[in-house]
Amino acid sequence: MEYRRILLDGVVTEVHRMGDRLVSRDGRAISVSEAAHLAPVQPTKIIAVHLNYRSRVEEFGTRLPDAPTYFHKPVSALNAHGGDVVRPAGCKFLNYEGEIAVVIGRTCRNIAPADAGHYIAGYTVANDYGLHDFRDTDAGSMLRVKGSDTLAPIGPGVVPDWDFHGKRIRTLVNDEVVQDGNTDEMRWDMHYLVADIARTITLVPGDVLLTGTPANSRPVEPGDVVEVEVEGLGVLRNRIVTGPEPVRADVGAQPTESEEVRSTALGGDWEFRGIRPPAR
Amino acid sequence: MEYRRILLDGVVTEVHRMGDRLVSRDGRAISVSEAAHLAPVQPTKIIAVHLNYRSRVEEFGTRLPDAPTYFHKPVSALNAHGGDVVRPAGCKFLNYEGEIAVVIGRTCRNIAPADAGHYIAGYTVANDYGLHDFRDTDAGSMLRVKGSDTLAPIGPGVVPDWDFHGKRIRTLVNDEVVQDGNTDEMRWDMHYLVADIARTITLVPGDVLLTGTPANSRPVEPGDVVEVEVEGLGVLRNRIVTGPEPVRADVGAQPTESEEVRSTALGGDWEFRGIRPPAR
Repeated sequence: MEYRRILLDGVVTEVHRMGDRLVSRDGRAISVSEAAHLAPVQPTKIIAVHLNYRSRVEEFGTRLPDAPTYFHKPVSALNAHGGDVVRPAGCKFLNYEGEIAVVIGRTCRNIAPADAGHYIAGYTVANDYGLHDFRDTDAGSMLRVKGSDTLAPIGPGVVPDWDFHGKRIRTLVNDEVVQDGNTDEMRWDMHYLVADIARTITLVPGDVLLTGTPANSRPVEPGDVVEVEVEGLGVLRNRIVTGPEPVRADVGAQPTESEEVRSTALGGDWEFRGIRPPAR
Repeated sequence: MEYRRILLDGVVTEVHRMGDRLVSRDGRAISVSEAAHLAPVQPTKIIAVHLNYRSRVEEFGTRLPDAPTYFHKPVSALNAHGGDVVRPAGCKFLNYEGEIAVVIGRTCRNIAPADAGHYIAGYTVANDYGLHDFRDTDAGSMLRVKGSDTLAPIGPGVVPDWDFHGKRIRTLVNDEVVQDGNTDEMRWDMHYLVADIARTITLVPGDVLLTGTPANSRPVEPGDVVEVEVEGLGVLRNRIVTGPEPVRADVGAQPTESEEVRSTALGGDWEFRGIRPPAR
């Protein structure tokens, strides 16, 4: 049964979905369309794989490394179904990446891939936004590109017992399909990724793994409505807005519009050293 | 007044230090040397600057970028004063990096460096360990190198109202001094770093920023006792042990002993693309 977290009568409340109604443990109900959602879980960490879907590898004209590589988004970047995603004033390259999120259910370390399913609470939809104006900063960690506030919406709810094989994943911008992939494109599946990370890093209940995106990550603009739709998991919808304050200029690396930043954002992004898209 | 977190009568308890005794709010006391310490705060994120101390820049024969760059350690890597640091069986290159940690005291976003002090709860000692056998994995994020379990000891306590100027920082391995620096070497000070990160990333109470290490990060061996000593903040002591289980070989990137891994570990490490140590 799908569960969500919403603000109900001023309290963050876990509810389950019954058709188009969300129902709390004491029976209070609200329609899905009226509910104010929070992220369905509260992770202590959000770990994302760089490159996993075949269509994205082909888009870059590259090849996969022998094993997956990862980065790490701060939990302060968490956002929810229906939440606005902020492109700060003065920035130009905010890219969507429709993804599927694994939610950990049990403390997990040093397990075989065949056992990983026992440690997974369920799955939800994610959009791994990147603010590529800061591409030239943070030297490969992508802390600010992928970790700035609002850039990690997940939801709307967690679906346990979801079979991840052969599921369609699409991203729509203003009702137009811009990404269209299938989980069968994934080089490494959900169980592999959990087992790989848990080799040296303890995962705890609520932790989130983002499992990669298909081809065609592109920039969106303030006013755009972005939806990620995964077969069996529902639709995660967010609107892009302009942050009222520009990023401060009195400290730190400034957002840039270098040729590399531009080509990365417009051609998808390759996200890690050693894998570069072909010249355009 | 310095405060710590210890396990007291089976409960995690905040205590303050009075000389060589740690005293709880209800007056129970234990000697510092007998106390089982936890990390003095519970961060939601641990963000670290790559390169900041002049002696380390000179060691690499490189130059600093125009602005600091950062990476992000998972909170599951947190460790405490007196905790063992694990080098998994089969790994060879576990390097210390003595550092000073800023602890955030108030929710912080979009502030001027001149105001950053108001958002800082205090300071503690840190050791930003790196497991360089995984240097070739994770493509610049250093997730596993810097983020594996036990690799982020901080403590022993948080000292509010500590003036960070002109303070000596030393690392000792088995009582021998191996790093000897001063906060005046820092290109970017504590206030700058807080304001820079908080430009796009909300910092919350308990969050930790690691502020860089002086020259001479080198590998240590199981059995070694590593101490980081900062003038006015005390001594953080950890012992290196071998993890009983090797890192699983059935998934993921394997630890490597490539020439790059070896030279990085033995020559300190440069930690980010674009900054390479001179050929040795």
